[in-house]
Amino acid sequence: MAPSDYSKPFITVTSPFPYVAVVELNRAQKLNSFTSQMFTDIGHVFSNLSIDPDVRVIILTAAGERSFSAGLDVSDASGGLIGGQSKSNEDVARKAWALRRHIKEIQEPISEIEKCEKPVICCMHGISFGAAIDISTCCDIRMCSKDTRFSVREVAVGLAADVGTLTRLPHTQVPMSWIKDICLTAREFSAEEAKTMGFVSGVFEDKKALLERAMELAKDIATKSPIAVQGTKAVINYSRDHSVADGLDYIAVWNSAMLQTQDVKDALLSGIQKRTPTFEKL
Amino acid sequence: MAPSDYSKPFITVTSPFPYVAVVELNRAQKLNSFTSQMFTDIGHVFSNLSIDPDVRVIILTAAGERSFSAGLDVSDASGGLIGGQSKSNEDVARKAWALRRHIKEIQEPISEIEKCEKPVICCMHGISFGAAIDISTCCDIRMCSKDTRFSVREVAVGLAADVGTLTRLPHTQVPMSWIKDICLTAREFSAEEAKTMGFVSGVFEDKKALLERAMELAKDIATKSPIAVQGTKAVINYSRDHSVADGLDYIAVWNSAMLQTQDVKDALLSGIQKRTPTFEKL
Amino acid sequence: MAPSDYSKPFITVTSPFPYVAVVELNRAQKLNSFTSQMFTDIGHVFSNLSIDPDVRVIILTAAGERSFSAGLDVSDASGGLIGGQSKSNEDVARKAWALRRHIKEIQEPISEIEKCEKPVICCMHGISFGAAIDISTCCDIRMCSKDTRFSVREVAVGLAADVGTLTRLPHTQVPMSWIKDICLTAREFSAEEAKTMGFVSGVFEDKKALLERAMELAKDIATKSPIAVQGTKAVINYSRDHSVADGLDYIAVWNSAMLQTQDVKDALLSGIQKRTPTFEKL
Amino acid sequence: MAPSDYSKPFITVTSPFPYVAVVELNRAQKLNSFTSQMFTDIGHVFSNLSIDPDVRVIILTAAGERSFSAGLDVSDASGGLIGGQSKSNEDVARKAWALRRHIKEIQEPISEIEKCEKPVICCMHGISFGAAIDISTCCDIRMCSKDTRFSVREVAVGLAADVGTLTRLPHTQVPMSWIKDICLTAREFSAEEAKTMGFVSGVFEDKKALLERAMELAKDIATKSPIAVQGTKAVINYSRDHSVADGLDYIAVWNSAMLQTQDVKDALLSGIQKRTPTFEKL
Amino acid sequence: MAPSDYSKPFITVTSPFPYVAVVELNRAQKLNSFTSQMFTDIGHVFSNLSIDPDVRVIILTAAGERSFSAGLDVSDASGGLIGGQSKSNEDVARKAWALRRHIKEIQEPISEIEKCEKPVICCMHGISFGAAIDISTCCDIRMCSKDTRFSVREVAVGLAADVGTLTRLPHTQVPMSWIKDICLTAREFSAEEAKTMGFVSGVFEDKKALLERAMELAKDIATKSPIAVQGTKAVINYSRDHSVADGLDYIAVWNSAMLQTQDVKDALLSGIQKRTPTFEKL
Amino acid sequence: MAPSDYSKPFITVTSPFPYVAVVELNRAQKLNSFTSQMFTDIGHVFSNLSIDPDVRVIILTAAGERSFSAGLDVSDASGGLIGGQSKSNEDVARKAWALRRHIKEIQEPISEIEKCEKPVICCMHGISFGAAIDISTCCDIRMCSKDTRFSVREVAVGLAADVGTLTRLPHTQVPMSWIKDICLTAREFSAEEAKTMGFVSGVFEDKKALLERAMELAKDIATKSPIAVQGTKAVINYSRDHSVADGLDYIAVWNSAMLQTQDVKDALLSGIQKRTPTFEKL
Repeated sequence: MAPSDYSKPFITVTSPFPYVAVVELNRAQKLNSFTSQMFTDIGHVFSNLSIDPDVRVIILTAAGERSFSAGLDVSDASGGLIGGQSKSNEDVARKAWALRRHIKEIQEPISEIEKCEKPVICCMHGISFGAAIDISTCCDIRMCSKDTRFSVREVAVGLAADVGTLTRLPHTQVPMSWIKDICLTAREFSAEEAKTMGFVSGVFEDKKALLERAMELAKDIATKSPIAVQGTKAVINYSRDHSVADGLDYIAVWNSAMLQTQDVKDALLSGIQKRTPTFEKL
Repeated sequence: MAPSDYSKPFITVTSPFPYVAVVELNRAQKLNSFTSQMFTDIGHVFSNLSIDPDVRVIILTAAGERSFSAGLDVSDASGGLIGGQSKSNEDVARKAWALRRHIKEIQEPISEIEKCEKPVICCMHGISFGAAIDISTCCDIRMCSKDTRFSVREVAVGLAADVGTLTRLPHTQVPMSWIKDICLTAREFSAEEAKTMGFVSGVFEDKKALLERAMELAKDIATKSPIAVQGTKAVINYSRDHSVADGLDYIAVWNSAMLQTQDVKDALLSGIQKRTPTFEKL
Repeated sequence: MAPSDYSKPFITVTSPFPYVAVVELNRAQKLNSFTSQMFTDIGHVFSNLSIDPDVRVIILTAAGERSFSAGLDVSDASGGLIGGQSKSNEDVARKAWALRRHIKEIQEPISEIEKCEKPVICCMHGISFGAAIDISTCCDIRMCSKDTRFSVREVAVGLAADVGTLTRLPHTQVPMSWIKDICLTAREFSAEEAKTMGFVSGVFEDKKALLERAMELAKDIATKSPIAVQGTKAVINYSRDHSVADGLDYIAVWNSAMLQTQDVKDALLSGIQKRTPTFEKL
Repeated sequence: MAPSDYSKPFITVTSPFPYVAVVELNRAQKLNSFTSQMFTDIGHVFSNLSIDPDVRVIILTAAGERSFSAGLDVSDASGGLIGGQSKSNEDVARKAWALRRHIKEIQEPISEIEKCEKPVICCMHGISFGAAIDISTCCDIRMCSKDTRFSVREVAVGLAADVGTLTRLPHTQVPMSWIKDICLTAREFSAEEAKTMGFVSGVFEDKKALLERAMELAKDIATKSPIAVQGTKAVINYSRDHSVADGLDYIAVWNSAMLQTQDVKDALLSGIQKRTPTFEKL
Repeated sequence: MAPSDYSKPFITVTSPFPYVAVVELNRAQKLNSFTSQMFTDIGHVFSNLSIDPDVRVIILTAAGERSFSAGLDVSDASGGLIGGQSKSNEDVARKAWALRRHIKEIQEPISEIEKCEKPVICCMHGISFGAAIDISTCCDIRMCSKDTRFSVREVAVGLAADVGTLTRLPHTQVPMSWIKDICLTAREFSAEEAKTMGFVSGVFEDKKALLERAMELAKDIATKSPIAVQGTKAVINYSRDHSVADGLDYIAVWNSAMLQTQDVKDALLSGIQKRTPTFEKL
Repeated sequence: MAPSDYSKPFITVTSPFPYVAVVELNRAQKLNSFTSQMFTDIGHVFSNLSIDPDVRVIILTAAGERSFSAGLDVSDASGGLIGGQSKSNEDVARKAWALRRHIKEIQEPISEIEKCEKPVICCMHGISFGAAIDISTCCDIRMCSKDTRFSVREVAVGLAADVGTLTRLPHTQVPMSWIKDICLTAREFSAEEAKTMGFVSGVFEDKKALLERAMELAKDIATKSPIAVQGTKAVINYSRDHSVADGLDYIAVWNSAMLQTQDVKDALLSGIQKRTPTFEKL
């Protein structure tokens, strides 16, 4: 099965280079805003890429020049996440139960991006509001073009963001005072500010330059041992949520199997021989 | 009850703008240093503001030009926090028991600032030592004027800071190497350094400019849905202390009720109609 | 026992100033790369310094101009950490068991640096790869000279770093997007980049200037109350791994004994008399 | 959709009474041992029942007189869980990766039983080995007939149980000394012993008496408010994994919506009027 | 101040023996059911007793022969905890916010019983429903008379118990299958069953015999070192909510002060001299 | 090296049966009470046995008929754990620091028993006070003879137990009400009571019968795959301190290597052939 077979109506998957998959939000006419279906779809895309042995690293980008994503498609969402208030003659607790399930239904596909075993490089440009932030906090590396306009929109439409931003932003390890500032005001912030605060780790002249650098980075990662790369991601994410003692114990158990790989030998040998190693699929 | 009714001898509360409360440390003649009573008082002020429906955002500032706060009033503290060593013929364990209770008694009112349901913007200027840092780490957004001189003083007077700095500073998510540096040396650091490290998220020319910007920010927050604003604060603070999985679960339960608010409808409608929405009190 | 008595074949310990110990990696001819024995040895050095009353602060540096440490000595390591794959006719589970024990055996001495009760200032220069990073993340304050070349090497040799880097780097509280970038690519990063990201808190012209500043810092810390200094380190490290509520409780229990020290009185008095206090050994 | 529509080849679902679903393992000819497919299937059954408004409580039982379940079908499993050792010329780390994924694939459907929002009453009889224990620890209430023979088998076939027993048994809150005894020896234990230790909360004369009592219990639960019943299950499970402080916070958020239900009024009124209330579906 | 001065309208405090306080729920005409005011009051009583040096152990009992407590006084509660559904024209989210605050307001005084530094022995008799269970789970030792009828009532009135039972019951470390059984059915259980399951650690012939035994136990505890007794309670409660590693660290910090007490010497000496020691107040 | 080579002055190690080690406290003339040296020694014994491939299970017993252990040897301890109060002219904080280190020094060897990778069966008889309980809570399976007299003594000598009892007893998962009862009163409890409460999982007529049963159990465990047995112990202990989600993740990582063992094949085959398998050393 080729990566492109994972494509969905508004999500295009390609593989321009061996082991590199590019996932593109492809609904530019609506500024790549998300419908409920798209959340489900992006979850499927990432859970498939996660176990595809032909994929070692993923670039997440979006079509068009204007926007990475303008967030939730409000017209589509009226029956869902933010439409809880509309079915007026229903029992409040039952409505709450339905809403909780619905939130978890949206959270789950988005969490698939974070759970994806392969590193994900998120390339943002233009308008990157609301769900754009939720999604980017699930990715491993965040980069953007100079024209990116970020905003944690939710507070401006009367709600606390609930599909990941408020939970994951503190775990991106950027200063808390700044997190509170942007989340409580819903104000826009620039690429430059995002860089200074550590939210993104690179800003590039335009979308083209951004994608070139992302591709370079992806190729570099793709040539490395997938055992090493994916183990590195897994253990950093585990450590983020646990104490140092727990983290050390976990990596020791993890590597008790992983160090038995042939890849270590191959990597060392290639290093000595100054050639690029080739690693078996994972 | 008007915000001003919450005022205490050395703490003045005003409300210069609807829904915005300004809490001012008001003991400039002693560089706004804290007596035991002032700790108790500031706790009361914030626990009252926390549930006052006429307050949606709080600015914390201090009177005079010279100092936000010089820390603990050492003369007053002699019988308490740092005077444990004075009652010399008492049993060590009993003295320890009394000290532990005393520390918790001081910790509790300060924690009220953090527990306050409304966002708190801390505006520091001039000397901001010891307790000034403890208190600022309980606030959501930290800003300062260019002349601010910060210092985690405690190590210089022979003790490990125990009313919050050492506990909360790591949770402000600024680099740990820098935290250790300033806490182990008690050295002063400047507004500029605080900004670079992410401890404050804004530096302004002088106290006046600082307060103007804080007021602007406060007004902006005050016009937003209090359901959204206060939920955002609550969930970020919860997420800081929990894993991503726990955080996602918590926001889903939280929003199962909160999304049923009228505020979402009102916010969306005002957005479409390009007017400022008015939200019911909370 | 003098600090120099703790010296080991490739690790030199000196005390150029009262209460200041300098630990020097001393295998410059091999770029200070680590053998298994050196890991064990550095653990012993630090667990001894940890309880030596004549030591209050430690500087960690390395001999020669070219490198702080080039990481694991691969030739020596072939039978160990990364040689798990070589004993080919053994049961996989038994080999895994041996590897897990071996990883924990390497982790333990390195963790002694973190567990050391005295503050540790890590001064890096030149090549600082692999184990150099592992070790530096156990130190309290990280500084470097301008010529430092950092790299989390492990992914390049086919493995996920397992003696501390992946676990402790997220707890240094630098931005996660950058952590993933450097760990997944194994790319070199400069002193300047390390400073901007908060990984080091100071960059100096050359090794000499670096060590001068470190010595200044160490002397400053050495003149402070060891009760205050070491309590500060202990409580920050505890807080890093626990919630705010747990942290406040811990410091209250801690200080119930510590505030009974004579050092507080002495520190306050010296402050008033504007003289340098002398504190009893700990 | 009727509960019976959820049936799978070896898993029969019926609803002998309104709101009560009975899930029956139905492979008596093989002592109800589990194939890989059956794990996947039971997960689907429970995740469907979890959100079916016509189901409020579930009884889990098994066909035939001889066995609730004899555990894993070893012939079927040869290619999977315990067959990791067979593909001999593969890289150890890649095999480990595949095994970890495979374990998680088996864990997930079993966890669906625990995640099921409705209470699950597990009725065991006869041989109840291996996977039978894994599954029963996911259920809320465990009961059995006098002839039940329990065993945590895994250690006897050379492995540490990995689909839940070792993880969940400590959380059933039975004495740890006994848990270690049964897990380390793989010895059989009787219904009587299981009752004394608290593993099951009821022992009945035979399978018939057992199912009668389970049905009585199920009917009782089915007549209660589903808001109350399912909230109770959710909050107990959350509390099991968190501190008391976290648990109190969680139930406060939970009930802020749930207490607004009409069910409380209806339950109170029916109580006063001594009639059985009828509650809306959830 | 004498213990009796802490008495409140329906809560009587006496001290029939030195260092022993008896708290009696005193609203027998209403089966000692709780009004909102009584929750607040019992919190005050216990927070006062917690720091009164003349109290070393507390017995909690209730007046009359029929009931320890029948739970919440439903008539009084109509405007509060379970009356959330009545103010029908209010915004759901604002009502949720008020309910959450209200639940926390009830939780807090009850938690004061658990936070009380002195051991609390809970003596139950007759009807012990709902809030009776909530409160008893905050006590250290639970005992009862043979006629006690227990019930976790909440599910029968349409709600998940939210002032502590569902959170603390799992932490009393009784079997989870039984906890789910009693919480999901709201069925009554007897003194005998409570004893078998470990919920109470003693059953006595009648209320008189129960109180005699409690008094004996209390006198025994009262003659021991308060440093030792209260430290023991504090550390067990901490350990319940933390890992073994955390617990060991905490007791080491705790005892670093506490072992310096004169009480250890006195206790050892009295042991040798076979006389009852007298310990200083705490 | 033979197990007997691990023997220490008052601790005898033998191996009466292949793979079974018996550790005997051997200071009967002093009721097997512990000196500081014995704590250090027992730690060494267990850390050696932990990695000795000729040992698969350990029985811990004590010489003589009168006592398993009477606890701390008070005469020896005067300079240490409970003698903190004696050096009267020292600074309280420095004394506290020394005490904390000393407690941790005693905790560490005792924790070696818990950390021991092999299952430990603790066989108690006669007087089993204080340290006897501390040590037994580190063992996996606790059994005793009918004449055993248990007591958590510490509170009777003026201190909160600090080398493990208060921390580990809650994690043995026996009812909390009973734990508080025995810890707060220091009262003796019988073998029968210990059995009813789940603290021990077997009571035998006398020491001889006890050791016979322990040997039977040990032989049974010794014939099983050490990969399976030791993995089972490790994962149960991990699960005890972590949430269900964390536990499931951990066992999946663990078994990704362990399932690749030859032992699974051998165990399955022996099962089919109805013969006792032989497993390679670990």
